[in-house]
Amino acid sequence: MGKLREFTIKTEETGVYNITRTVTDAIKESGVESGFAVIFCPHTTAAVAFNENTDPNVGADMLLGMDNAFPKLEGYRHFEGNSDAHIKSSSLGAELIVLIDEGWPLLGIWQNIYFVEFYGPRERKYYIKIVED
Amino acid sequence: MGKLREFTIKTEETGVYNITRTVTDAIKESGVESGFAVIFCPHTTAAVAFNENTDPNVGADMLLGMDNAFPKLEGYRHFEGNSDAHIKSSSLGAELIVLIDEGWPLLGIWQNIYFVEFYGPRERKYYIKIVED
Amino acid sequence: MGKLREFTIKTEETGVYNITRTVTDAIKESGVESGFAVIFCPHTTAAVAFNENTDPNVGADMLLGMDNAFPKLEGYRHFEGNSDAHIKSSSLGAELIVLIDEGWPLLGIWQNIYFVEFYGPRERKYYIKIVED
Repeated sequence: MGKLREFTIKTEETGVYNITRTVTDAIKESGVESGFAVIFCPHTTAAVAFNENTDPNVGADMLLGMDNAFPKLEGYRHFEGNSDAHIKSSSLGAELIVLIDEGWPLLGIWQNIYFVEFYGPRERKYYIKIVED
Repeated sequence: MGKLREFTIKTEETGVYNITRTVTDAIKESGVESGFAVIFCPHTTAAVAFNENTDPNVGADMLLGMDNAFPKLEGYRHFEGNSDAHIKSSSLGAELIVLIDEGWPLLGIWQNIYFVEFYGPRERKYYIKIVED
Repeated sequence: MGKLREFTIKTEETGVYNITRTVTDAIKESGVESGFAVIFCPHTTAAVAFNENTDPNVGADMLLGMDNAFPKLEGYRHFEGNSDAHIKSSSLGAELIVLIDEGWPLLGIWQNIYFVEFYGPRERKYYIKIVED
């Protein structure tokens, strides 16, 4: 049985927000021992991603690196002027799969789960769906 | 029970094609109320992605932004000369997960599903697999 | 029932490693005829990706293209100096979904599955979880 839950997060203009604890809690509360979780971002100027969890600079560096790869271009025609944020969102992706093993998210030692804002500040949503084997 | 269906799409040299309606119809026809769909692109010079659905310029901007991030490089050695298309495909990704809630795809208000061509024109395929909870 | 298996891979400083055979074998050994596999990389400076399988130059080109899109930047502040590898990892992604149809991975003719190293050499791990319909 899949369990779908909705969460909200308040963001700055741009930012990288650690949601690992929320995902872990949702898994524990579900009681699912083996399966997987889908993390889904229903926005087209934000994303979800895995990244390192020890050094907070990694988040700022991620935003800088995405800006460098996908800068604002003169050729962009989208009337809102935020095509760079749309492309960053599509490129990083709106969904993550987190495997569940013995009731815990199966993550690497330094691996955490992040909500990434490219066009805030906003109140954003994300979903966690837990699927049992 | 998972239901796997195959679809075809005719593409231009490059292009961004809205397949949201096809995904929605496949979900409705499956009768699945809760679960998820996997959208899979079996090509290495095309991709599937979420993006905004209101302004058609967003598609053209996505292609331009991907070209800028992953241009043709002099150092590329692949004999077909389309390494830029391969990297765009790998970067954007070949699979999407779409959550199904109460019989509908769970998407943001402005969020749609796209097939993205980087090396056409071709007749392409994509698969939709629907998994019930 | 989901079946989770762990694999190891020895990498060079950077590299693109074809793991399609391992995935196919894991699917065959599971006996699952219809479902999907999740390939998961628990590292934040490596990734998993689909790409073409015929020309070995495609792997080298992928690394070159990712270097070009996500170069080392002077503004990076992460103390380990490998923020470019973290961003490449987040961008390419840590998970893949491979559909299983009639006991085989559903891949395009030229489509294979790769483990991508951005910050080796290391002994890396990856997981394959097989989910039956």
